[in-house]
Amino acid sequence: MDRIKTGIEGFDEIVKGGIPKGQIVLLSGAPGTGKTTICAQYVWEGLKKYNENGVFVSFEENAKTIRETYKEFGYDFNQYERLGKFAFLKYDPYHIEEVFDLLESSIREIGAKRVVIDSISALGLHVRDKAELRRMIFNLSTILKKLDCTSIMVSEIVPGSKGISRHGVEEFVADSVVVLYYERNNLVFNRAIQIWKITGSDHSKKLHPYKITGKGIVIRPEEEAYLKK
Amino acid sequence: MDRIKTGIEGFDEIVKGGIPKGQIVLLSGAPGTGKTTICAQYVWEGLKKYNENGVFVSFEENAKTIRETYKEFGYDFNQYERLGKFAFLKYDPYHIEEVFDLLESSIREIGAKRVVIDSISALGLHVRDKAELRRMIFNLSTILKKLDCTSIMVSEIVPGSKGISRHGVEEFVADSVVVLYYERNNLVFNRAIQIWKITGSDHSKKLHPYKITGKGIVIRPEEEAYLKK
Amino acid sequence: MDRIKTGIEGFDEIVKGGIPKGQIVLLSGAPGTGKTTICAQYVWEGLKKYNENGVFVSFEENAKTIRETYKEFGYDFNQYERLGKFAFLKYDPYHIEEVFDLLESSIREIGAKRVVIDSISALGLHVRDKAELRRMIFNLSTILKKLDCTSIMVSEIVPGSKGISRHGVEEFVADSVVVLYYERNNLVFNRAIQIWKITGSDHSKKLHPYKITGKGIVIRPEEEAYLKK
Amino acid sequence: MDRIKTGIEGFDEIVKGGIPKGQIVLLSGAPGTGKTTICAQYVWEGLKKYNENGVFVSFEENAKTIRETYKEFGYDFNQYERLGKFAFLKYDPYHIEEVFDLLESSIREIGAKRVVIDSISALGLHVRDKAELRRMIFNLSTILKKLDCTSIMVSEIVPGSKGISRHGVEEFVADSVVVLYYERNNLVFNRAIQIWKITGSDHSKKLHPYKITGKGIVIRPEEEAYLKK
Amino acid sequence: MDRIKTGIEGFDEIVKGGIPKGQIVLLSGAPGTGKTTICAQYVWEGLKKYNENGVFVSFEENAKTIRETYKEFGYDFNQYERLGKFAFLKYDPYHIEEVFDLLESSIREIGAKRVVIDSISALGLHVRDKAELRRMIFNLSTILKKLDCTSIMVSEIVPGSKGISRHGVEEFVADSVVVLYYERNNLVFNRAIQIWKITGSDHSKKLHPYKITGKGIVIRPEEEAYLKK
Amino acid sequence: MDRIKTGIEGFDEIVKGGIPKGQIVLLSGAPGTGKTTICAQYVWEGLKKYNENGVFVSFEENAKTIRETYKEFGYDFNQYERLGKFAFLKYDPYHIEEVFDLLESSIREIGAKRVVIDSISALGLHVRDKAELRRMIFNLSTILKKLDCTSIMVSEIVPGSKGISRHGVEEFVADSVVVLYYERNNLVFNRAIQIWKITGSDHSKKLHPYKITGKGIVIRPEEEAYLKK
Repeated sequence: MDRIKTGIEGFDEIVKGGIPKGQIVLLSGAPGTGKTTICAQYVWEGLKKYNENGVFVSFEENAKTIRETYKEFGYDFNQYERLGKFAFLKYDPYHIEEVFDLLESSIREIGAKRVVIDSISALGLHVRDKAELRRMIFNLSTILKKLDCTSIMVSEIVPGSKGISRHGVEEFVADSVVVLYYERNNLVFNRAIQIWKITGSDHSKKLHPYKITGKGIVIRPEEEAYLKK
Repeated sequence: MDRIKTGIEGFDEIVKGGIPKGQIVLLSGAPGTGKTTICAQYVWEGLKKYNENGVFVSFEENAKTIRETYKEFGYDFNQYERLGKFAFLKYDPYHIEEVFDLLESSIREIGAKRVVIDSISALGLHVRDKAELRRMIFNLSTILKKLDCTSIMVSEIVPGSKGISRHGVEEFVADSVVVLYYERNNLVFNRAIQIWKITGSDHSKKLHPYKITGKGIVIRPEEEAYLKK
Repeated sequence: MDRIKTGIEGFDEIVKGGIPKGQIVLLSGAPGTGKTTICAQYVWEGLKKYNENGVFVSFEENAKTIRETYKEFGYDFNQYERLGKFAFLKYDPYHIEEVFDLLESSIREIGAKRVVIDSISALGLHVRDKAELRRMIFNLSTILKKLDCTSIMVSEIVPGSKGISRHGVEEFVADSVVVLYYERNNLVFNRAIQIWKITGSDHSKKLHPYKITGKGIVIRPEEEAYLKK
Repeated sequence: MDRIKTGIEGFDEIVKGGIPKGQIVLLSGAPGTGKTTICAQYVWEGLKKYNENGVFVSFEENAKTIRETYKEFGYDFNQYERLGKFAFLKYDPYHIEEVFDLLESSIREIGAKRVVIDSISALGLHVRDKAELRRMIFNLSTILKKLDCTSIMVSEIVPGSKGISRHGVEEFVADSVVVLYYERNNLVFNRAIQIWKITGSDHSKKLHPYKITGKGIVIRPEEEAYLKK
Repeated sequence: MDRIKTGIEGFDEIVKGGIPKGQIVLLSGAPGTGKTTICAQYVWEGLKKYNENGVFVSFEENAKTIRETYKEFGYDFNQYERLGKFAFLKYDPYHIEEVFDLLESSIREIGAKRVVIDSISALGLHVRDKAELRRMIFNLSTILKKLDCTSIMVSEIVPGSKGISRHGVEEFVADSVVVLYYERNNLVFNRAIQIWKITGSDHSKKLHPYKITGKGIVIRPEEEAYLKK
Repeated sequence: MDRIKTGIEGFDEIVKGGIPKGQIVLLSGAPGTGKTTICAQYVWEGLKKYNENGVFVSFEENAKTIRETYKEFGYDFNQYERLGKFAFLKYDPYHIEEVFDLLESSIREIGAKRVVIDSISALGLHVRDKAELRRMIFNLSTILKKLDCTSIMVSEIVPGSKGISRHGVEEFVADSVVVLYYERNNLVFNRAIQIWKITGSDHSKKLHPYKITGKGIVIRPEEEAYLKK
């Protein structure tokens, strides 16, 4: 099985070597869990370390904010954009089908191998019918798989809800599911990442603490250490 | 009572010899519990070990992904397909009645004894009325029973919900119900299988831990061992 | 007060001698709790031991499955059917009023004293309005009482819900209510029966464990024994 | 403050002498808590011990069942009916306004002082709008108060729900509220009565165990005894 | 900051001297917590002790019942009504706007300083839209503030719900919020009052037990004493 | 990263120096948690200490109440209003788009750097569709960012709900999220503040107790001290 190394510290270890090539990974978490950071980092590491081009699709945030925020992390997306190796796509959740063509042509043009969609939740607010939402995500997945991309789709979980996605259908379309937790332990809040499922592959079954640093997120893969806590 | 041996390690022991012939088994579980793996394994073991032909019906996944994923498990469905002993059926949940004829003719053509439907949950997203869903599943069951198949239907449970099916009606149409759990125990997640009901047969009343290996799932039937944990 | 002995081992003891004659008993439980078995056993014991004829009404299951399943229990309904002492009625929940005439004429023809309706839950899926459902169950009860039958109506409870019926109205129409529990105790699931209410009669206030054997269900009425567990 | 003695053993003690004259008491409880028995007993004691005439209004049960069930308790309503001191009223929840005139004329004819309405819950199933339900119960109360009756209205609580009435509005229309509990304590179910509120009067703040005997319900007012349990 | 002394024993102490002048206080509680008693007491004390005139607005209860109930407490509203210092207003929740003019003219005529609205919950049953309800309560507040009244609005909480108002919007319109609890502690029910918020003022942060006596409610402000319980 | 110092005692320390310039902060809390006080204090400190002009937008409260309440805190907004350095905007949630132009021109006129919107929750009551609400908040954010303001938007949480915003979408539009808690600990209620997320910045992960004093809120940033409690 071919795998795509995310380049995120500790992540590749807990998924036993990287994301299986061509898969759609659902990345779910509450606000403040670093979902956008993981996306940016995944694309950035692809550009810089693995020579894999990328597309960052944002339904709501605009490219400007993301560009500025992650410039401080040292992710200079602009230089790769100028080289035709990276693109930001932003579009209107009210007219999602329109972006499908744009996305496909962007991926082809750039020769993108890594795609992130941050997020698919706003999408779910527009299509009221969960069947429709499922189909739309499925159609999006079909495009990404046809073009041989390895992708991350973000789902925003409302704090206090118990599910592993916003609408309860996203996890059934995705090949793999990664969940970010933000849990209160008495007076302190802690973050933990869980590899919920990787289709066709073994993975860690543990909850791993992680940090959001000024360079991106850092996961510690040595599980035993954390279990003693 | 005639029984169909699943060939899944440990499964037949906890249902006292296999699935009663001609029954519809509901297999429920959250994402990542290995539902599709059990389906693939059930059909594969039928083909290879028991000379029982099979049909794999997928509402959403396409045959390609399943074929590739399970080839790595050593399940070479292609060779049996060429021999006319196996078929993948894939269809549109928006036009489910259309597949009924196709399913019936496929089963007859192949002489299938094992059928898996992975999953019936998307179906439930399209028919909003639970009575309609129940009838549709009932009609599907009627076809399968008429053709003397022993079948597994998959229901996708949203993590955090308490039911044993997605829509709360599937378990009343099925003859038998098997539930897969994915439970967090402090910092580690564990998997367990429960035989909820087997119509007309005794079965284990315990929760059995299981593993998803590179060859399929493995259940340990020696219950006492696990109870000591 | 006249009572109808169910003939189910242990059941008559915990209701202080049997079901009060002419009552409608609601029998509620999750899948796998043996609701259909209790129904079959109640009718069978009537035929065999008490010379009381019976009608088994099934909204969804077909007579064939029930006949075959319980033949293995030693309940040979066919012989009594040939003698005109027993009938299976099966009908369409979409056209429930049609069965009312059929049910009335069947009961009169056979001279049935015991009637079971397995189940009234599908009914509730068709009438969306709980008032309508209540009225329909009430009308059904009226027929059964007019014909002097002592009846069991089955309600299917979704596992994880807290009520004692599917729709929250059935228990208010029935004269008596019996609930079957299926509870997880660490790694083992246990069954227990509770007599929730018997109009006009005393009854056990305890939860009694029971078993589903190859001959039917068996309840142990010696309450003290179980309380020590 | 004038009070109406219910004559129910122990009840009058825990409400400090009886129900304040002219009030509407809401009596809430799950099935099997003896709501109908308290109603029957309240009317019966009025007839027999206090020479106060009564009307029993039943939305669903028919007079025949109630008459027969409580004859076994020794409540011979028939003799008082013949004397023009008691009446059963039964009517259709679909046409509730029709009963209002009938109820008013019955009360006047009989000179009733005690009225029971068993139950107002079916009413709530027909009027979907809670405001409408509240108004209807309020209108019913107005009639009863105008005619100087002291009344009990029954509300059926679905087991497992947390409220003190079926629809969450009944308790705000009633002057007083009495709640019947049926609680599981390990393997045994116990009954307890609580005086939730008596407008303008002190009352016990405790949960009192009670029994349903062959003569009616019996409450033990000595609170200390029960608290030691 | 000017404050209005309620005159309720212990209440003024826990709000640090009285209700800030001109505010709208939301008083929330389940049935039987004494909401109406606090309202009556607040108006009565104004009339008798502080020479502040008052208006009692009741959406559902009629003046007669309240007059009679509180006459037993020694609150003789009739004498102040004759003096033109007090008025009962009663109106139809279906036509709430109509009462606005009436309320304004009554307040002006009487020169009322204290107004109680018991309750605003029925209002919420009529306007289905929470935005509409919020606006209506806001409009009501505007009138009361314009006329310089210090007011209490009652919200009826359904027992078992977790909110601090019936509809979840009332607390955001009110300046201050007082919540009455009725909590079960094993076999006894206890009452406690909480000052949830007083805009622009400090207040007790504790739960204070209180009693409903034949003279009105009595709160003990010495907090330490209760904490030891 | 440029930061805006709030000037609120202890707040700037727990966000590592102030709110990142140009961000939208969601401030969520139940009634009585001091949300409006933080808003007033944020604007006031800007005017007085940092020479940053401000706009206070209120959907429901009127300028008069806020002016009067906070005058007692020593916040004399009037003087700055006369100097053209501060403005109160109040508008109708039914016609929200109308305020957008007004808001933009006010900010330009005044040269405002600090904007508070208290609250956006009433807004959510008018647009029933969460997608619409999200878009509206997003549009509002776009205006504020275009004009280079650093803003606080208030979300009112219903006590007892688990989310960190009223409607479950606000937190996904905001750059940063601050949550105010009001928790019952036996008989006393305590307040605590949590910095849930600051986009692009580190922050305290702890729950910090705070007080509402006559001068505004006061947070203690020395985390260790509180953890010992």
